[in-house]
Amino acid sequence: MTISQIDMPRFLSRLHALSEIGRDGQGRLTRLAASDADRAGRETVAAWMHEAGLEVLIDRVGNLIGLWQPDGVTGAPIMMGSHIDTVIDAGAYDGCVGVLAGIAVVEALKAAGYRPGRPLAVAAFTNEEGVRYAPDMMGSLVYADGLAPEAALATVGTDGTVLGEELARIGQAGPHEPGFLRPHAYVELHVEQGPVLEREGVAIGAVADLQGISWQEVTIDGTANHAGTTPMALRRDAGVAAAHLITWLRDRARAGNGRSVATVGRLRFEPDAINIIPGRAILTVDLRDPDAERLVALETDFAVQLDEIRRTEDVTVTIRRLARFEPVLFDAAIVRTIEAAAAARHLTVRRMTSGAGHDAQMMARICPSAMIFVPSIGGISHNPREQTHARDLEAGVNILLDVASHLSNV
Amino acid sequence: MTISQIDMPRFLSRLHALSEIGRDGQGRLTRLAASDADRAGRETVAAWMHEAGLEVLIDRVGNLIGLWQPDGVTGAPIMMGSHIDTVIDAGAYDGCVGVLAGIAVVEALKAAGYRPGRPLAVAAFTNEEGVRYAPDMMGSLVYADGLAPEAALATVGTDGTVLGEELARIGQAGPHEPGFLRPHAYVELHVEQGPVLEREGVAIGAVADLQGISWQEVTIDGTANHAGTTPMALRRDAGVAAAHLITWLRDRARAGNGRSVATVGRLRFEPDAINIIPGRAILTVDLRDPDAERLVALETDFAVQLDEIRRTEDVTVTIRRLARFEPVLFDAAIVRTIEAAAAARHLTVRRMTSGAGHDAQMMARICPSAMIFVPSIGGISHNPREQTHARDLEAGVNILLDVASHLSNV
Repeated sequence: MTISQIDMPRFLSRLHALSEIGRDGQGRLTRLAASDADRAGRETVAAWMHEAGLEVLIDRVGNLIGLWQPDGVTGAPIMMGSHIDTVIDAGAYDGCVGVLAGIAVVEALKAAGYRPGRPLAVAAFTNEEGVRYAPDMMGSLVYADGLAPEAALATVGTDGTVLGEELARIGQAGPHEPGFLRPHAYVELHVEQGPVLEREGVAIGAVADLQGISWQEVTIDGTANHAGTTPMALRRDAGVAAAHLITWLRDRARAGNGRSVATVGRLRFEPDAINIIPGRAILTVDLRDPDAERLVALETDFAVQLDEIRRTEDVTVTIRRLARFEPVLFDAAIVRTIEAAAAARHLTVRRMTSGAGHDAQMMARICPSAMIFVPSIGGISHNPREQTHARDLEAGVNILLDVASHLSNV
Repeated sequence: MTISQIDMPRFLSRLHALSEIGRDGQGRLTRLAASDADRAGRETVAAWMHEAGLEVLIDRVGNLIGLWQPDGVTGAPIMMGSHIDTVIDAGAYDGCVGVLAGIAVVEALKAAGYRPGRPLAVAAFTNEEGVRYAPDMMGSLVYADGLAPEAALATVGTDGTVLGEELARIGQAGPHEPGFLRPHAYVELHVEQGPVLEREGVAIGAVADLQGISWQEVTIDGTANHAGTTPMALRRDAGVAAAHLITWLRDRARAGNGRSVATVGRLRFEPDAINIIPGRAILTVDLRDPDAERLVALETDFAVQLDEIRRTEDVTVTIRRLARFEPVLFDAAIVRTIEAAAAARHLTVRRMTSGAGHDAQMMARICPSAMIFVPSIGGISHNPREQTHARDLEAGVNILLDVASHLSNV
């Protein structure tokens, strides 16, 4: 069964319009969770959901869900979705593609006069990126019972704001209890955000599993002292200790089988003055591996290295766990359905691992879930140069259409 | 000739009072150049100068000078001084000791009915620390013809302010041309800010020379990309490149003869997000050595290392020179006078090199200059725990008294 009436011009036009919401004076796109820009993006997406004839429902943590439930159609819905919050200085595709594709799929099915065997839903989950409020994938985590709504709403952001207050302020704290619609299955279309599909010339990724993620914040305390009068041998330099951790992490991740990745994305020195030895360094550590045991080994080796740094640099080191998610295995039947849909459309397809965290990994806790990837040009993401060719987007939306309509009738 | 009537209780009480000016809500002392806190400190010091019978004069770049010129006494003055601006979260001693000691010396001489052969002056130079406006030692540099007043006044600070506007705002842009009083000699009392005197149990440092200083800002550009989906081998991580520079600098400085020091005091990542590979890293590099050739060698080796990093990390690197001062040799006759004064008071004394930059190095461009050091407990400076024992302060102020009165009569 193939219904191929996706309105691609409308999809692309919405994708572009959404990418213009949240640009700053320098043209940088930043739509952090529960910000004014997020509000504008959410209101626009809700308007498109209404346009598509979806009932718009918002839960207490701001998850925005459009529901298509034709008269007489009952049962747990097939849910599509992703998120529309972004990182700082973001691209246009990450997350937004999955949400807008879900709306486009419902519109295509309705236009074809298709009657689903189950309701269909499109979700835009709150705070997937975790830039302003940790942890990331928060909305879907709450939706899937992994975090109490009250805990999420009480989260204090990097800017000192409280998520619950910000959601209320922007009018996105809804009445529904997170998880109020228990899906029969969840499928998320997303740009790969990595180089594999492009490098191999493959159109569709059938995502079979997802890396485990370990986020920690490391605080190193040495002694702030004068940069000119303190001999090298007498220093307790928190910045040098941080630098050793960064180079060690890179070497350790490189030494593996190519599946582990380690990143220090944030680093701050105190007092942060040119002529003062850093007395404190605060850094974030992002470790990922698709294999649970290898991820634990990476974390363990890092902990040993922290002890080594304490000793060799005469500093104190404290750790704060920011987030941890085990590797996720997606639903094998949905993965096969994706592969079959690609084959039927004569699209190349390969099974793959997701290197990024996604809302689908949370939804996998409560229903069979899987993901569809489309190629990212140059593998670039979380960057204004993030891009996917229109023909690849079209292929991805069509596979989502095929998989969602199939799942709604089995 | 020994006049030993320094009013130490008054000196210590002023030192304490000055250290209370510029404390924030958490009790941290921060009196950045031309800030509101600096204004309050300057007004207090000017009031003490008036109290001591000094004529208070301010030049166009805010250098604050108290002049004691008894009737009939002419000629170029003997100048004492230092600065009262501080780093962030500073101690009470750095700079302030030298300014308040100068005032105390004049008071002691007047109280003893002493008639100097020349005028005496006490200077508090603008922006010695260079935290808000680069370069450091700016006021004395301008005073000594090393920088045009207009260039100094046009300096844009780390907070986007313009020094000239801030000086005018706080009422410290005076009418006099910098350098209007050409000193016959300059002597600066300062806390050592290092561990040498305390470790050797010596009371007085006769500072014979001063390290050369090289300040650079290094900007490293790589590619911001997703921390989960970008394999280690395909990264252009500006943060890792910065970390390699930091560890290399430490190793290089350690490998020398113990005289070179290298410090990375500031480091910033962009976009500074936990799940994004740093696309840019901006760091400051502070290199010092008392030997001019060794300082050049250190800078040259660092430049070679930057080329290495460009190549091995596939990043671009740009350099901005923030400041550079050659090593300084102080006036041998004044150094001998300091040693003789210490001997006469039965105080232990040693010749030494200053590891920090000081206003005296600028004044050495226009008149015979030298410095007197007193011990810093634990060698700690640029830190709230900076401290010098009262008996060591008293010894230092007395040596300043002896040297200034001697110089005013030769």
